[in-house]
Amino acid sequence: MIIKHLVIGISAVVGLCSALPAAAQFQKPEDAVKYRKAAFTVMGAHFSRIGAMAQGRVPFDGAAAAANAEIVANLSKLPFAGFVDGTSGTEKGTPKANVWTERAKFDAGAKKMQDEVAKLAAAAKANNLDQLKVAFGSAAATCKACHDDFRNQ
Amino acid sequence: MIIKHLVIGISAVVGLCSALPAAAQFQKPEDAVKYRKAAFTVMGAHFSRIGAMAQGRVPFDGAAAAANAEIVANLSKLPFAGFVDGTSGTEKGTPKANVWTERAKFDAGAKKMQDEVAKLAAAAKANNLDQLKVAFGSAAATCKACHDDFRNQ
Repeated sequence: MIIKHLVIGISAVVGLCSALPAAAQFQKPEDAVKYRKAAFTVMGAHFSRIGAMAQGRVPFDGAAAAANAEIVANLSKLPFAGFVDGTSGTEKGTPKANVWTERAKFDAGAKKMQDEVAKLAAAAKANNLDQLKVAFGSAAATCKACHDDFRNQ
Repeated sequence: MIIKHLVIGISAVVGLCSALPAAAQFQKPEDAVKYRKAAFTVMGAHFSRIGAMAQGRVPFDGAAAAANAEIVANLSKLPFAGFVDGTSGTEKGTPKANVWTERAKFDAGAKKMQDEVAKLAAAAKANNLDQLKVAFGSAAATCKACHDDFRNQ
């Protein structure tokens, strides 16, 4: 226990403090990676269903859009806890190391996405396709911004 | 379009009707499989954090238990849409064919789990460890029941 506290103390000193609460939720780094990918998978599935309506590929259904948007908004809070130290990559689709070296920018991007999908949920509830299109575009832009900056292409 | 409607009509006649709305949400069966696995992964991660408290492996934190339980309750509604036709398996961890041949029983098991995790969320909000332990046990039993009956061991 003393050693554990000492390790935590040392880690904090070398600047890993902010990642510790998230890391502590997972037994292994692989679990964190699996978790964050899973959260994005579920979120993406529901987001794309709204996109299909916003882009006219399927008929607009306000109730379905609202249900999907609520799921997206709930899910949007989850994946970022899975970005624990030591889980960057180089392969396509993996997070680049700058997620950790530019963490404040990354976190701000995550927050922006969460704000925009909350607005998307509100727009969906308004049952107005034009509002939904605008909100979907804004939310999708926050996905792209982070992917461009922080994900290996 | 006519052919598509005809195919849907024929499928309905041969009894695939109930699976169609779910299947229509996914472009490919593999997408449905990936989706349902991802939903279970996220749900399981949060459920296991409540289990750690219920089983005394980490200190009881009512607010954390409630937050995790709410996520579990939200996620519990999602994975079953991913059990689309043609996605049974034989490998460990995959769904057995009786998910589809005993669909009413499977759906009842899913509903039971959803009900128990809703009770778990209520117990967690009550901020009472004893209640949480009972509710966690009941919810975990519903996981096991379905896994025993419908998942390849």
